[in-house]
This record gives sequence, structure tokens and C-alpha cells, in this order.
Amino acid sequence: MTPAATESPADLVITGCAVLTHDDRERIGFTRDAAVVVHDGVVTEVTGAGAVAGRAARERIDARGQVALPGLINCHTHSPMVALRGLAEDLPTEEWFNDVVWPVESNLTGRDVELGARLACAEMIRGGVTTFADHYFAMDAVAAVVAECGMRALLGEAYFSSQGPEGRERSLAFALRHRGTAGGRITTALAPHAPYTVDDPDLAATARLAREHGLPVHLHAAENRDQTEASLARHGVTPVEVLHRTGILDTDVLIAHGTGIVDGDLPLLECAEGRTAVATAPRGYLRFAWPHTTPVRALRDIGVPVGLATDGAASNNSLDVWEAMALTSLIQKSSEGDPRWLTSRQALHHATLQSARAVGLGDSVGRIAPGRRADLVLVDLTGPHTQPVHDLAATLVHSARAADVRTTIVDGRVLMRDRELLTIDVTGVVAELGERLPALVDRSHGRRIQEYDLRPHGRYGGRDRK
Amino acid sequence: MTPAATESPADLVITGCAVLTHDDRERIGFTRDAAVVVHDGVVTEVTGAGAVAGRAARERIDARGQVALPGLINCHTHSPMVALRGLAEDLPTEEWFNDVVWPVESNLTGRDVELGARLACAEMIRGGVTTFADHYFAMDAVAAVVAECGMRALLGEAYFSSQGPEGRERSLAFALRHRGTAGGRITTALAPHAPYTVDDPDLAATARLAREHGLPVHLHAAENRDQTEASLARHGVTPVEVLHRTGILDTDVLIAHGTGIVDGDLPLLECAEGRTAVATAPRGYLRFAWPHTTPVRALRDIGVPVGLATDGAASNNSLDVWEAMALTSLIQKSSEGDPRWLTSRQALHHATLQSARAVGLGDSVGRIAPGRRADLVLVDLTGPHTQPVHDLAATLVHSARAADVRTTIVDGRVLMRDRELLTIDVTGVVAELGERLPALVDRSHGRRIQEYDLRPHGRYGGRDRK
Repeated sequence: MTPAATESPADLVITGCAVLTHDDRERIGFTRDAAVVVHDGVVTEVTGAGAVAGRAARERIDARGQVALPGLINCHTHSPMVALRGLAEDLPTEEWFNDVVWPVESNLTGRDVELGARLACAEMIRGGVTTFADHYFAMDAVAAVVAECGMRALLGEAYFSSQGPEGRERSLAFALRHRGTAGGRITTALAPHAPYTVDDPDLAATARLAREHGLPVHLHAAENRDQTEASLARHGVTPVEVLHRTGILDTDVLIAHGTGIVDGDLPLLECAEGRTAVATAPRGYLRFAWPHTTPVRALRDIGVPVGLATDGAASNNSLDVWEAMALTSLIQKSSEGDPRWLTSRQALHHATLQSARAVGLGDSVGRIAPGRRADLVLVDLTGPHTQPVHDLAATLVHSARAADVRTTIVDGRVLMRDRELLTIDVTGVVAELGERLPALVDRSHGRRIQEYDLRPHGRYGGRDRK
Repeated sequence: MTPAATESPADLVITGCAVLTHDDRERIGFTRDAAVVVHDGVVTEVTGAGAVAGRAARERIDARGQVALPGLINCHTHSPMVALRGLAEDLPTEEWFNDVVWPVESNLTGRDVELGARLACAEMIRGGVTTFADHYFAMDAVAAVVAECGMRALLGEAYFSSQGPEGRERSLAFALRHRGTAGGRITTALAPHAPYTVDDPDLAATARLAREHGLPVHLHAAENRDQTEASLARHGVTPVEVLHRTGILDTDVLIAHGTGIVDGDLPLLECAEGRTAVATAPRGYLRFAWPHTTPVRALRDIGVPVGLATDGAASNNSLDVWEAMALTSLIQKSSEGDPRWLTSRQALHHATLQSARAVGLGDSVGRIAPGRRADLVLVDLTGPHTQPVHDLAATLVHSARAADVRTTIVDGRVLMRDRELLTIDVTGVVAELGERLPALVDRSHGRRIQEYDLRPHGRYGGRDRK
């Protein structure tokens, strides 16, 4: 018990739930009939419900029949793209980019980004997500939404080399302007789009800026095997080798997808000087019929954390990290041909500690324990689809659903209580966004913000066609 | 408009929703701001909301912001196995059967089956399922639950050849006793377990009984590629060829899984005299790391309907047909290497007409149209995870979730209204089932009801070890 716990009334006491905990070897366990005590946004105690019976508290939550787990972390998304949910269906990757998404994104305004981010945060809070790593344009608007809605986020302003040095400079300015804002809930990254749209000099300059300013880098790389093969055909090196030779692997880097990571890349990732992590969003890989998924087992073997993600809703149709957790387990079993691999407890390890490390918050979130930020969710397991419970880890990963999250808490502040959002007005957002959609999705102008072109002699690192 | 619609008050009028409809070429469409009128359990009109403004009705549902679609059909499950949800995790198929499920099932009592079925029906009604095809033991108890809770079901009493001829006879007696009961909501099938546990003479006798009594056959066959290879090694024929030579393909047959169906089987399935259908439950194939999924595209090309299914919750962890719909689309894209295949509209075709045909109800359910039974669900699309809507089919398949079903209706009777179950007491079921679980899951006796053994000289069609 910390001194604070005895001296001042707690800000929040949650009682009666099972609490997901990690032991000193990071194994997942559950403490039954427990209580969680929060002061000043920090968990100060995880104890028995009886121990806090008479404890003074500004707010109490009776969570019997529920499980408290660390808030989910969406390790790679483009939150404002919820505005395009369902717009570009059943298309191969190249057509998805060139024919729909990049033309539409040439219409984007800050207001679209703001409304999309607000809708995305509503969806994520309702699905038990407390932190997200966002990679998009007009990110000042996203930062404002994060500040207002109470979530935690790692934000990066995306850029292509086709924007000239201004793209990189804007990304740096954004990162420096917003780092540590929203009461410390916002952290920032430099966010080059990918090695196939950002050239080597630009990546090298990004790596230098990252080291100089102590910023991490968040980018797409080796998204699929075609990209790896195109990179080999053009440059004689894989995308991960590009990250190595440009110095990006000397920074703290979060790589999105990595389904095109090949065996030869693993030593580079293992020896990287910075903190290296990968975000996996398996739904989209199925949808695009990519031939591989993220090599989670190989990355585990070299100590690279793999966080869970949804990518944007234009490719994933939702920001449902709960589904990403279940799918990661299922698709890993299938791709490795091993039903014993990626058990529910392993999936929960990815969802908690590995995801926290992936977004650079390994010391502050990802577990419910004294000294950690009070980012947690309460999950109701009384529904018929989650009964009976023979194995709580399996119930959480494979039977529970995002809609079973009843309460979402960040820094000790309740953002959703009993399914009611307390910081976002969904109806208003949907109404205004609906009015803006015709202008947003108009493609009659023939522009696109970038070109996806993996041909051997195509415009790899292509130029803006605006 | 039928005469009934003008002469007597409707039993139920639903207004203001979009209605999923099929055109004369079975293409999926949506009628906006529509109304559905029900008399005597049958849809009598699908019209504009304005056309029914003054219509007399015993019950009205204002369904603005919702979509009405045909109730989902779970084409292959073992409903009472919800009692084993999460008990046998991360195991290969053989260990799952031999070390956990078949030992535990030697403890089964009728009361366990009844409680399990009741919990399963609660889960399915909450997930928008109106009909299920069930294949299990002590099925009188399941029939009683179906009668009481208001769902529609195709029920079959399972048997192994290890039970002797009594197994088959009990299955027949069950099918004849319950056929057409529960106001016609119960239909029945003969339910041999599988070609690897029911020998050829027994299958041939089953086929004769099916033809004699006009009953369909529901069984597992070619569940995975290992079974197909084991059958070839032992008998020189595939499981589908076994169904052919024993006459099962001359009956109306529902084949569960079929991930081991090979190209050479297709002409047999195409030329089958009876109605042949396959149920696909892709979640379990991933979980068991089977190397293939159901060959939906090849079956489509020969005109064999493929219905959606969950299998039992001991392998699938849920009876979530909504998830099965999304996963079928995603896994088919991935397995065919074609992002354009199995679009959301195709997924909805499988979920509606093809599933209805698979369970032998192609003329009575599976679409919302005059003359069809009034089995439908209302889905709320106002949640942030389903907004905005660019493509309603994509929203339904890839963004909506089982928990978005607000109202479930069978034969015009509301079984769930605004998420509240009206015919099942979940709390009571969970409490009693919980008390019974220690006895149910006890494996100290060393018995199992059957053996899974695909070895070339193993006891294929093995004997009861009780």
C-alpha cells in the first residue's frame, strides 16, 4: 500500500471483478474478487475487494461479474479513415490505393479529419481501446480530438517524398508541438509513409531528426511480399534492409504489418540499436488476399514485440482490436500449421505488454499494477456467449466481443460507463460527417495524393500527381 | 397485397427500416424506409413505410435506423456443447477428440444437454440466429428447448457404428417422433456421425431409411484433408466417394465442413440425385490449423449451396454466425488468392438463400418476401463502428457484429426485443449448469464415447471403449 492510498481519498475504487495480472515472468493470471485503487490517474493498489470496503473514494464502481484488463492498444491505425469505411471493397491493394483511397484523400480537409477521428475514438472507446498509434494527415485535428475525448495516443503526421522536404519538416514540427500534451497522454512520432513512397535520403534525414530530437519513427514497411520483391528487383535490398541502411533501425521504430519480412531480415531486426516493434492487423491481409501474415513467431524468437492493430477502417472495416486479438491467434495457428501456437494467454500478452512496448509506453501502461497509469477496461462476462467459463483467457480472447466492454477508463477517468460514451457525441458527428461525404468521396477531379506502383521500372517513390 | 392483409389486423407490422431483399435473379438489394407486415407467422407484405401508416396491427415495431434481414441460420452445430466452451483449447484435432471431448461426453446426461441447448439458444437468439441444424445426443431434450424458446431447428440424433444398429434406430425414431412438431418449426434428419465412425453397411442402411421415410441426412464428411487421405489409404476411396457408394448422395444430404473435398469428388457431388449442401464453419479450421478451408468457389461452380455454420462451441468458442459470415468472406479471399471473390453480397447470399437451402428450408425461410415464414432480425446500424454507411452490404458483413442485433423474430413471434430475451432465463441456466460442470468434465474414469484414429491400421470406424 502506498502512502497516498492511506492518506487521501482515492479518486476511483473498482471492486468485485477479476483482474488480469502479469507475474514477474510476465505470465498472465487472474486475481479473483479483487479491487483496483486509483489516485491521480495512477493505479496505487490491486488488492482483495474486502481490503477496500471502507476506503474513502470519490468514485466507486461495483464490477462483479466483470473482468478488468489493461485497456487495449491499437498499435497502427489511420483513425480519420473511418470516414471511408466500406467505400473501397473487394479490390486488390493497388486498385484500393490508386483508384479509391488516394484520389479521395486529395479532397481531405481538417474538418473531415477531425470528425473522422472523433467517430474513430468513439468506436475505440466502446471497443475497450484506451491508446492508439495514429498515422495520417492534418494530425493537429486528431491531437485536438484526443485531448478532448480523453484517450491516449501516439500521433504522427504522415509524409511522402513527393511532398518535398516540407513533408518531413511538417512531421517534425507536429511531433515537437504536441509531444507530452493533453496531460501527457499524447506522445508523438515521425511518420514517413513507407520505403516505397519515401526515398532513401528522406529516410536517412528522418532517422537523423529522430535521434536528434529523441522521437520514435512509425512507418509502413514490407507490408506484403510483393513490396519486398519489388524492392529487391529495384534496389537489390529488402524494405527492412532499406530501414537498416538509412539508419531508421537505429531509432525507436514501429513497423506496420511486416508480412513481407523475410528470414534474411531477422538478424537486422534483432541487432537494431533502437527499440524495434511490429504492429499486426491480420484482417486486412486476408481481405487483400496477401499470401502471408506477420511472422509473429519468428519475431518472438528474436525478441521483437508484436502489437495488435486494425489499420484504418477503409481496409479493415472496423477499429475492433478485440477482433484483431482473436484473429491474430487464429491466423497464427493456421499460418504456422500449429494449433498449440499462440494460445489465448499469448494473445493477451500481445494485447497488453507487447502492444504497450510497441507504442513506446512499456513502462507506463499495458498492465494493471501499482505505479502504472490507470488505463483499463471492465468486460462483462455474464452474456450467454461467454458462459460457462472454463478458461478465463480463452473466454476473453475467443468468446468475448468488443461489445462486452462495459466501462473504459484512461488515466483514471471514465470515458464510457455501462456502454454510455461520456466524452463524445456520436449523433452530432455522424450527422455532420454525412453532409460532408459527397465532397469527400468525389473522384471526378482525377487527382490522387500519391501513386502505388511496384513495377520494376515504375515510379517507385512516385511523385504527387496533384 | 394479399386478402389477409386487408381483411384482418396484422399480427406484426415493422416500419421504417431498410429491408434486405432478393430480386428475381437472387441478387441482394435493400428497400429503404420500408415496412414488413406479418399475419399468422407469415410475411404478407414488404412495402413502403407510408403504405402501412393506418394499418391495424396487434404489435408494431418502429425500426428506424435499423436493417431487417432474414434471420441467420446456423447450418451445423452441436448446441449443447456450449457447456464445454473453452475446455479444450490449443489442441490438435485428435487430442481434442480423444483426450477431452469424447471422454467428457461419456458423462453427458439429458439434463446437461437440455441446459446446454437452452444456453446455446439464448446465445443464438441474441446473435440474430433464427434457425439451427443440430447434431448431437439426447436430442429429445434439445427438441423440448426448441419448442419452448421459439427457434426453428433441423434436429438429428447422432450415432456411431460402435453403438450397433440401435444407434441408427434411435436416430430414426427421434426423427419420426419430432418431425413437424413445435408448430412445424422442428424438422428432422438422420444423423450418422461421419464416414470415419459409421461403417459402410450402416451408412447404406441409413440411406435406405432416409429414402423410405423422406428424411434428409446430416453428417460430417471430409472434415479435413487428413481424413480424405486416411480414407484413400484404407479404402481406396475418398469420404465423398463413400457417401456415393453407400447411397447417401441419393438422399438430401447436409455435409459438415468438407475442407477435405478434393477435385475428384466434385462430379459426384454435382450429379448427386438428392439435394446436396455443405456447411462451412471456418473459425474451427483456423484453430485446428487444418491446411484447407471449405472449397466454396468450386462448390458454387457445380451448384452446391454452402451454408454458414459455427460447429459446436467447444471448437468454435461461440455460436456467432455473424462472425462466420465475415470469416467466410475473408478466408475465401485469402484461400483463393483473390480479393474480388466472395464479396459482401455473396456472403449475404450464403447467409440467406444458400443457408436456407442447406437446411432444407429453401422454400420457407431465407428471404423476406410475401409467403415466407416471418423469421427475421432487426440490426441497429447507429453505433459508431457501423458509421458512415457507404455500402450497406459491406457494413452488415464486415462492420456490424452479432451484438448489433436488437430484435429477433421467428414465425412472427418476437424472441428478443431491444436485446432482452423473452423466452429464456439465462441466469437460471448458467447457475444450474455451473453446479453440474464438475461432474460433466470429470475424466478420471478413463472412458471415451468413441476414438479418433486415422492411422492406416488403426481402428477406423473404431469401437466404443466404454
